[in-house]
Amino acid sequence: MNKFFSDNVIEALNFINQFKNKIFVIKIGGTQISDEKIFTSICSNIKTLYSIGINIVLVHGGGKEISKRLLKVGIKSEFINGYRITSENHISEIEMILSGKINKDITLKLNNIGVTSVGLNGKDGGMISCSKKSLINDIDIGMVGEIDGLNLNLIRLLLKERIIPIISPIGFNKNGETFNINADQVAGSIASELKSEKLILLTDVDGYYKNINDKDSFVSKLNLDEVEKILNDNKLNGGMYPKLECCYKSVSSTRKTAHIINGNVKDSLLIEVLSYGGIGTMIYI
Amino acid sequence: MNKFFSDNVIEALNFINQFKNKIFVIKIGGTQISDEKIFTSICSNIKTLYSIGINIVLVHGGGKEISKRLLKVGIKSEFINGYRITSENHISEIEMILSGKINKDITLKLNNIGVTSVGLNGKDGGMISCSKKSLINDIDIGMVGEIDGLNLNLIRLLLKERIIPIISPIGFNKNGETFNINADQVAGSIASELKSEKLILLTDVDGYYKNINDKDSFVSKLNLDEVEKILNDNKLNGGMYPKLECCYKSVSSTRKTAHIINGNVKDSLLIEVLSYGGIGTMIYI
Amino acid sequence: MNKFFSDNVIEALNFINQFKNKIFVIKIGGTQISDEKIFTSICSNIKTLYSIGINIVLVHGGGKEISKRLLKVGIKSEFINGYRITSENHISEIEMILSGKINKDITLKLNNIGVTSVGLNGKDGGMISCSKKSLINDIDIGMVGEIDGLNLNLIRLLLKERIIPIISPIGFNKNGETFNINADQVAGSIASELKSEKLILLTDVDGYYKNINDKDSFVSKLNLDEVEKILNDNKLNGGMYPKLECCYKSVSSTRKTAHIINGNVKDSLLIEVLSYGGIGTMIYI
Amino acid sequence: MNKFFSDNVIEALNFINQFKNKIFVIKIGGTQISDEKIFTSICSNIKTLYSIGINIVLVHGGGKEISKRLLKVGIKSEFINGYRITSENHISEIEMILSGKINKDITLKLNNIGVTSVGLNGKDGGMISCSKKSLINDIDIGMVGEIDGLNLNLIRLLLKERIIPIISPIGFNKNGETFNINADQVAGSIASELKSEKLILLTDVDGYYKNINDKDSFVSKLNLDEVEKILNDNKLNGGMYPKLECCYKSVSSTRKTAHIINGNVKDSLLIEVLSYGGIGTMIYI
Amino acid sequence: MNKFFSDNVIEALNFINQFKNKIFVIKIGGTQISDEKIFTSICSNIKTLYSIGINIVLVHGGGKEISKRLLKVGIKSEFINGYRITSENHISEIEMILSGKINKDITLKLNNIGVTSVGLNGKDGGMISCSKKSLINDIDIGMVGEIDGLNLNLIRLLLKERIIPIISPIGFNKNGETFNINADQVAGSIASELKSEKLILLTDVDGYYKNINDKDSFVSKLNLDEVEKILNDNKLNGGMYPKLECCYKSVSSTRKTAHIINGNVKDSLLIEVLSYGGIGTMIYI
Amino acid sequence: MNKFFSDNVIEALNFINQFKNKIFVIKIGGTQISDEKIFTSICSNIKTLYSIGINIVLVHGGGKEISKRLLKVGIKSEFINGYRITSENHISEIEMILSGKINKDITLKLNNIGVTSVGLNGKDGGMISCSKKSLINDIDIGMVGEIDGLNLNLIRLLLKERIIPIISPIGFNKNGETFNINADQVAGSIASELKSEKLILLTDVDGYYKNINDKDSFVSKLNLDEVEKILNDNKLNGGMYPKLECCYKSVSSTRKTAHIINGNVKDSLLIEVLSYGGIGTMIYI
Repeated sequence: MNKFFSDNVIEALNFINQFKNKIFVIKIGGTQISDEKIFTSICSNIKTLYSIGINIVLVHGGGKEISKRLLKVGIKSEFINGYRITSENHISEIEMILSGKINKDITLKLNNIGVTSVGLNGKDGGMISCSKKSLINDIDIGMVGEIDGLNLNLIRLLLKERIIPIISPIGFNKNGETFNINADQVAGSIASELKSEKLILLTDVDGYYKNINDKDSFVSKLNLDEVEKILNDNKLNGGMYPKLECCYKSVSSTRKTAHIINGNVKDSLLIEVLSYGGIGTMIYI
Repeated sequence: MNKFFSDNVIEALNFINQFKNKIFVIKIGGTQISDEKIFTSICSNIKTLYSIGINIVLVHGGGKEISKRLLKVGIKSEFINGYRITSENHISEIEMILSGKINKDITLKLNNIGVTSVGLNGKDGGMISCSKKSLINDIDIGMVGEIDGLNLNLIRLLLKERIIPIISPIGFNKNGETFNINADQVAGSIASELKSEKLILLTDVDGYYKNINDKDSFVSKLNLDEVEKILNDNKLNGGMYPKLECCYKSVSSTRKTAHIINGNVKDSLLIEVLSYGGIGTMIYI
Repeated sequence: MNKFFSDNVIEALNFINQFKNKIFVIKIGGTQISDEKIFTSICSNIKTLYSIGINIVLVHGGGKEISKRLLKVGIKSEFINGYRITSENHISEIEMILSGKINKDITLKLNNIGVTSVGLNGKDGGMISCSKKSLINDIDIGMVGEIDGLNLNLIRLLLKERIIPIISPIGFNKNGETFNINADQVAGSIASELKSEKLILLTDVDGYYKNINDKDSFVSKLNLDEVEKILNDNKLNGGMYPKLECCYKSVSSTRKTAHIINGNVKDSLLIEVLSYGGIGTMIYI
Repeated sequence: MNKFFSDNVIEALNFINQFKNKIFVIKIGGTQISDEKIFTSICSNIKTLYSIGINIVLVHGGGKEISKRLLKVGIKSEFINGYRITSENHISEIEMILSGKINKDITLKLNNIGVTSVGLNGKDGGMISCSKKSLINDIDIGMVGEIDGLNLNLIRLLLKERIIPIISPIGFNKNGETFNINADQVAGSIASELKSEKLILLTDVDGYYKNINDKDSFVSKLNLDEVEKILNDNKLNGGMYPKLECCYKSVSSTRKTAHIINGNVKDSLLIEVLSYGGIGTMIYI
Repeated sequence: MNKFFSDNVIEALNFINQFKNKIFVIKIGGTQISDEKIFTSICSNIKTLYSIGINIVLVHGGGKEISKRLLKVGIKSEFINGYRITSENHISEIEMILSGKINKDITLKLNNIGVTSVGLNGKDGGMISCSKKSLINDIDIGMVGEIDGLNLNLIRLLLKERIIPIISPIGFNKNGETFNINADQVAGSIASELKSEKLILLTDVDGYYKNINDKDSFVSKLNLDEVEKILNDNKLNGGMYPKLECCYKSVSSTRKTAHIINGNVKDSLLIEVLSYGGIGTMIYI
Repeated sequence: MNKFFSDNVIEALNFINQFKNKIFVIKIGGTQISDEKIFTSICSNIKTLYSIGINIVLVHGGGKEISKRLLKVGIKSEFINGYRITSENHISEIEMILSGKINKDITLKLNNIGVTSVGLNGKDGGMISCSKKSLINDIDIGMVGEIDGLNLNLIRLLLKERIIPIISPIGFNKNGETFNINADQVAGSIASELKSEKLILLTDVDGYYKNINDKDSFVSKLNLDEVEKILNDNKLNGGMYPKLECCYKSVSSTRKTAHIINGNVKDSLLIEVLSYGGIGTMIYI
């Protein structure tokens, strides 16, 4: 046993030394937040990464929670190409759920296990300025935002003090309007701007399969050329396409790596980051 | 005209030099936020104070807005001694309105006029830890919090960087519960802890009148002994009592001043702070 | 009244914030120094500017005082083109009056009202090196100096410590000779070298009039092209020409502004600097 | 496997975070240095500890090597109570072997695997001042030194720069004499003076056995009281007594821990330091 | 010769190392300033001391020059107990000569040989505040000042930048009056306040003789007890008494040394400071 | 005498000020170390140079001592072109003598007179990496090293802390082999790399004579062109050729000076460095 012990430790140490003081942008999805056990385990992994000196920016989504709550006030959710149609009356409901509920739940959880955190949305410090997304198939999808610019001074300040910023995907414009943004895109853009060491998307699937029906076709590593080819082939199922696209853009800019991993598997975050083999799909340059 | 010009400027300069790099804790009420014109004017005054080097912490309430919104989801508001009875199902609605709506509206407004601001609640950075308020007249008023402790590291960090923290009156405990807190009390406690130069409560009235029906009985300055006597006399109308009490506690701790002013009067904030005469009621040691 | 109060203050604050930590080079003339009341008022204005964080270099003249004192030791003053004919025996008398009398009077006055000041002449710290001015109309005007070089290390050191240097217009050369220099030229050269925000010449007139006999022809602002034209037209009365020329040179170098104002009007310094309208003539780029 | 991986890593991380920037004083014996394979493995363990931010001071012995080399120049080694009788002619031979051969071998080895090291003895920077040890059983054991004082400025300087000092057990006095010192004592004294986190003695045995003949009587942890009792019982075999005594003194001073471990077991250093169970005997307060 | 060379250098080096970064307050008298050759040589010695890192404060007198110049404007000098009777009309003449003539001559000289210097009097930076000296033998000696307080912030600032302050013995009070002060007293008080390493009075005599008529009675060193006895004996000639008294006060405060040396002997300053034997009389604790 | 005193001191001060904080690389030969009196005097000179702020790197040889000691273990020394034939069995003997004996003797001596020193060889901090010198006249001269690269981080660190590094001429390669190097070459290379102010070779001769038999043909100064001509003429006796060559290379790189002086003459180091005339031969650009 001792042999494995020191081998495992020496393996992990390679990464620990390499990643110290580096920035990871981690996106956590609605599914992971709603399941108390999974959520607790992910927070514990975040604490471990934090404790070895990694600077973490956490971006969260909240799709299911939003749909559930909107129903409560009598609003039925509709989507086009994965974008939620967001009328002007809905946006403030959505902001309240994301920034006034989910965001503060995560913040409280992390602070209570000893990881200093601050819950923010894209308005804080003028972080995420947006414009309205254009029509999709001639349909106005409402207050869905396209990111125009990022001001990450506040994020940099917090990271320097070893505080984790937790960010809801809400943006603004100079006219005082509020926008709902795709959380993967927020995470990817922030990773690009910060030139972060890793972008990690916690999802409900293991990563990329060549053939979604063949468990043996799992792919651990994809370089940018391979990702480009997959995107062009355009045979992907709905969920994986935008995630690979997001990773592609981010890695093109950071020249580092992005990771799609299954957030529902225990310790997947640690194993992906600290072992040679990893557990999900890594996109590299 | 020139004569008045230089006299006014020289008068204001006395205060400008005195208050530079000092901290003001300002509490803004629901009324001021809902009236667009008043709100815009107060934000402009805050910008002026910020521009002369005053470090501002802004605490906001939101009573009316909360009641209105709760009604929308079918909840009727009830109060005892001015405290909102807050059942466990209501608290997350209240937090969403305060921290996900009002707070972010103010944040966006200030950022958009060039004053870097960050919207927070008491969970951020583990800022305001609470316990449940005890029964009032044998009635359990629910998730209303009593402030147990303040961790203002985050606030100090932001002030040092000239960023205005905007704080919703929401607290937490170590069990992960959320509490609604009186906003005046939050402002007063933060002022005490920061030993702030001024605590300023923006209200709907001019300040303290000896006789509420006699416009000529207005009082510009009260020292702590006078306030103590007024509180003991217990002849005050509902609203003024807790405000005077809050100022009393804060000034006892800071050994500086507290101010109750009419937020609805144009430039009241500037005139109170930068002229000898002031406009509201000042409580001093 | 309150309305004007906050309007005036907000107007002045624009300038206060703009000029903080900037350098003003102010030249004060003999007339202002000899009149006790005017002198006291100017010192008070300087204190106000100093208190809002402006770094001031004060240059003084002393024409009348010199003439009066020289008479006492039996010397009659003669001028050519505004330059005092300065024989070798006279120069040490002149230096004594400027640097041992007027300079120290100002220094004492400012220190005694709480503005830390140091009286210097161009020999201190090797500040102003000169050569002898060439003949004017074939006449040797003696020990009148042309500025060859400035070493402002000492001035920068004092300004950094918030000490006002007060400078007599006396220069030196490497042979150990002493020179009398025109005070406006000293102020202008220092302003150029320091790239000062403002050069301000306190004079006995209001500023520039298109027609000296027509009070309504006063001009508040002149750009460099306009000044150039006026200088070329060469219709100016004796006193204004060299002042405009001095401002022209300085503004050409600093790319900021120069001001000719009436030092005998109460608070003219404050009004010129802190109001939109100003009171004298401003030369800008 | 992944499960064990993250468990092992999380276990080790506890210690990694705890020991970062702390000082370990490690004593390596002659046996470990002479066996190429063991020596290489220990150097690799040192590199791992160094890489996680532990500041290491390495003290070495060299008994066997000295005896062997002395024989070459015709000198036979004699010992009393474990102290080598060191005539004045021998001391310079001993210093040459320790500081000119063994010390530089270790230095070269560590530098060549990327761990910046500097070989020193107690004369460098006036580090270890000694006096002559008193007679043992009326016999003068020669130039064997008792440590009088330590000047660790040089060691602190090197540690601050992340350089490992490697120290031969040689001291000096103000008369210019050279002394041979017991290496365990040098390590223990330095640990005491630096208030080091750990003193680790790499030996040829597993640690402390209650009964040396009973493999099951191994003791993993001893507190100071237990060590004191063992020392007073005085039933220990020759080698273990001075080592326990050395650990006792050091822990009494540092209020931290000392460790006796088997340097011949692979990765014993890593396992002792980074796992809860450890592998040798730990002495604690 | 080489032998003497290295002996002399090693002797001087002892003092050079000892005095580096220390402060010397040197008082130079009128006689030394008027003789061009002596003055040049002293300036050269000052440059040498400056170049080895000694921080120098130079105080000057100017008795003879003042008398000569006063005569020019028709004023005859009168003295009581060594104090110049200074009517209110005379004081501004005296200040002009000291601060506008002698002071600037020294400043120019030192700057021109590469020693950065600034000429000051006691008004600069509010340095020397005074009150009027009381009657001597019932005679009002006029504007002669007694030092009340020293503000040496400016001096410390200049010394830190390696600039030599050159100080005229002129003081002020809060009413704006100007006072003439004894230069030895100015030097002594500054030395006390700065806890300077040395106070050095350059005079016209070699130092202290037990018997003024016996060249062999010269005394190189006096401790404070001896000086006290000499002062009490009161047999000293006029000039030496106040100088010894001044040294006595200064050394009592600084716990360092004071020196009375003959400024007219070539290199006396260097020899006194850098050799064991010295050349004048040293007062020590 | 006083006259000479101040002249000598002023002469030396020119150099003292010039050389403060500069680096001197001094090579001391075996002869100087073996003679106790000479060695003591050189150490005292080093202390003087150190005390005036010169940063010294000391390189030592040890030829005679090595030969003597090798004989003791039965090895006879052989040389080709001045290089010691160094079989693999001999190199560790040589390293022990140089780094374990001579180096530590010098270190102890300097520390004991108050000059903080550290004894090193080329393995420490990975300082001197070597390759094997090629055959000379077809003869393999063994483990004699050619310097490939220098890593002087450790040296720079020590100099910054005012610690003198004392260096034995031993190098290493990445295979873990040890090499003997010519000490003059070590000194010269370090001087080049550090761009040291002076390289000083202490030898047994006065410097360079045009005609070795004519005492009057001594040459105090040689520029690089002259040295090049002498080297090309190739008429030099054995010892002087490599020394001049070494100085030539070093000065070509540093653009400063190198000095060959007689280490056996008292205070030769001081006289060469601190007087205009010097005592040995200086090579300059």
